[in-house]
Amino acid sequence: MSLNQELQLERPMDDVRHELILNVVRTATLMSLQGNTLFRRYGLTEAQFNVLFALKYKMRDWTQSDLSKRLVVTRASITSVLDKLEAKALVRRVAVAGNRRIYHVELTERGATMVDAVEPVYRAAVHDACRPFTDAQCRTLIRQLEELRRGVTGVNEG
Amino acid sequence: MSLNQELQLERPMDDVRHELILNVVRTATLMSLQGNTLFRRYGLTEAQFNVLFALKYKMRDWTQSDLSKRLVVTRASITSVLDKLEAKALVRRVAVAGNRRIYHVELTERGATMVDAVEPVYRAAVHDACRPFTDAQCRTLIRQLEELRRGVTGVNEG
Repeated sequence: MSLNQELQLERPMDDVRHELILNVVRTATLMSLQGNTLFRRYGLTEAQFNVLFALKYKMRDWTQSDLSKRLVVTRASITSVLDKLEAKALVRRVAVAGNRRIYHVELTERGATMVDAVEPVYRAAVHDACRPFTDAQCRTLIRQLEELRRGVTGVNEG
Repeated sequence: MSLNQELQLERPMDDVRHELILNVVRTATLMSLQGNTLFRRYGLTEAQFNVLFALKYKMRDWTQSDLSKRLVVTRASITSVLDKLEAKALVRRVAVAGNRRIYHVELTERGATMVDAVEPVYRAAVHDACRPFTDAQCRTLIRQLEELRRGVTGVNEG
């Protein structure tokens, strides 16, 4: 459905570039709503799942700052997400020998079990959402979104 | 730049559908950060600008609920956004004769002046971000994002 219909706009959008930007935002918003519905069944928010998922695939020790850099959604509130996950015993902060100011973040056994339970359901939803596209179409779309990000982050830089 | 590079992933993503979904989310996140930087120069948040912009283009009276339906980003917090805009005298809530429980939301003169000042700067940034794409490419991308939204919202519906 077009944004004009989805939002019941009284005046159809007449600027195709503005419509493109709003389509990206709208699509991400719907993904996020859908993700939250899925994760809620496991007592998780989207932000909490993203952290568990990232920690599952890390290959070396990560500080909180290493973790934030690797999250797709930049959040100022990573500390509070970690506090909540720690309260549920899904992650733990581990002291780093010789440096009292930093610590490493890792999954607990319970956290690892949780992410292993949610991940296949999440992946199935991702595949289901992308069913209109072939692999090649996915790759083209990815490349175009990369170009758009270059455009977005280059704004006002020259 | 690919997500693998942007996020310095230790293991490159090997699932093109997952990569597509994350690319949409990442692109929207960067747009939002860039938008907030732009709007902050006018003392506005992105959510506040979105409300002012929607109100500028409305063609009939809108209640708060009419307004929420027309925002691209669904926010539970529309009441608090309106409170802040009202405190800055950029919007007003107008009582509806014969119904004490609802009111219409509209721009004040100051709000109209504000949106007229920000809009051209915002539109220029949008066009700048989309400079890699022709009109036809924008339309194709929009159509594919619409398809993806159909996929996302159809998840688990059978």
